[in-house]
Amino acid sequence: MATAGGAGGERAELQVLGTWSSPWVIRVRVALALKGLRYEYAEEDLANKSDLLLRSNPVHKKVPVLIHGGRPVCESLVILQYIDEAWAGVETTPLLPSDDPHDRAAARFWATYVNDTFFPSWRALFKSTTDEQRATAFESVVPVVEPLERAFRECSKGKKPFFGAGRRRGSSTSCSAAILVWIKVVDEVTGVTLLDEARFPGLAAWAERFMAVDAVREVMPDSDKVMEQYKGFLTKWIASADRS
Amino acid sequence: MATAGGAGGERAELQVLGTWSSPWVIRVRVALALKGLRYEYAEEDLANKSDLLLRSNPVHKKVPVLIHGGRPVCESLVILQYIDEAWAGVETTPLLPSDDPHDRAAARFWATYVNDTFFPSWRALFKSTTDEQRATAFESVVPVVEPLERAFRECSKGKKPFFGAGRRRGSSTSCSAAILVWIKVVDEVTGVTLLDEARFPGLAAWAERFMAVDAVREVMPDSDKVMEQYKGFLTKWIASADRS
Repeated sequence: MATAGGAGGERAELQVLGTWSSPWVIRVRVALALKGLRYEYAEEDLANKSDLLLRSNPVHKKVPVLIHGGRPVCESLVILQYIDEAWAGVETTPLLPSDDPHDRAAARFWATYVNDTFFPSWRALFKSTTDEQRATAFESVVPVVEPLERAFRECSKGKKPFFGAGRRRGSSTSCSAAILVWIKVVDEVTGVTLLDEARFPGLAAWAERFMAVDAVREVMPDSDKVMEQYKGFLTKWIASADRS
Repeated sequence: MATAGGAGGERAELQVLGTWSSPWVIRVRVALALKGLRYEYAEEDLANKSDLLLRSNPVHKKVPVLIHGGRPVCESLVILQYIDEAWAGVETTPLLPSDDPHDRAAARFWATYVNDTFFPSWRALFKSTTDEQRATAFESVVPVVEPLERAFRECSKGKKPFFGAGRRRGSSTSCSAAILVWIKVVDEVTGVTLLDEARFPGLAAWAERFMAVDAVREVMPDSDKVMEQYKGFLTKWIASADRS
């Protein structure tokens, strides 16, 4: 539910600084959409970062940044929890399961897993440019996906299709969702299929359920545009590998 | 406030599986001590992990694990937040600042910074075995410490000596504290001084303030014992470098 800036150049109460294809930015926009919050979105050029970005995130100088009432919040997982807490009273969609601290811990555990374990492993697949590299990267990523697959299946059995947040979409889901559009594109290019129904039925079923949520669909970037960007990356990486 | 196991082999309500010198375990024990919680502590042999550890943290098979009423919680930052939430009502020491979501986001931001930015950078210093390696590692870690130093100084100016949790000890403090005893030992061995009053006065002053807290002192491992362990690591690393 991004909106244009206020009339007369006034600063919006809620702003997101991002880049359209970044999974870290997408996860924040999914969370804001799930909460039904309106915000001003500013697309950053990472080769020429805005003064506002440099001022708002002086430590990392990275997107996403959420600016609320002039105060910046950085780091996507920190932003998700901020959104959940700052709008705890007025909204009905908690990003974390709201009642049981143990369910909240489980959601945070899997969010951390996606960030610190899954993503670095999958990145090798993403950056592969030859069939040989892809095969090796895929073999490495499979054991990392397996615990996620088991968790998704247990989660479904427990009738908590969105990970601990009752029948709602949880924070760990927003985390994983962020990367979903990229997983699909990399699956398509590489011919390896992480979202394969036979191999990872829990993950594949979750992906389908999640992409059907209106708030998610409205925020996810167009997959053709993501594919175009990915093919551009691959061309550059292949060229630089040829030079070295 | 660790206690021996219950009489007759009954399982304690609250257990920690750890190793005595791990900063990730220390941070959990600091948090429990700040909350005044009693627990049973089990020292793990990482070369021969217990069935309880393997069963409780099947994904990472790592310490620390907190087991509360039979249910395991893994990942130290997830455990800290669990402790804060599960004993929110009965305790008076919040680990995260409890009133302002923006202060909580700041505390989480710095906790993430210590984990994902400071620690990996400092690790190179920790693992250095020659003066040349140490000089290079120190030059790399200084720019990573500088934002922390600025944050500590601003925090002091704002009369929030423990990072956002009013005048109390916050979660980011527990996070940083965890590594304090190791920083001191590495400082001593390498002759480089991260806790140097002239270079990092905010950090040095915080370290002194924090180590004066009773609950912290009772949990911190003896620095001579840590030194002995570190010298053992160094001897092994030097021997393995000589072989290669």
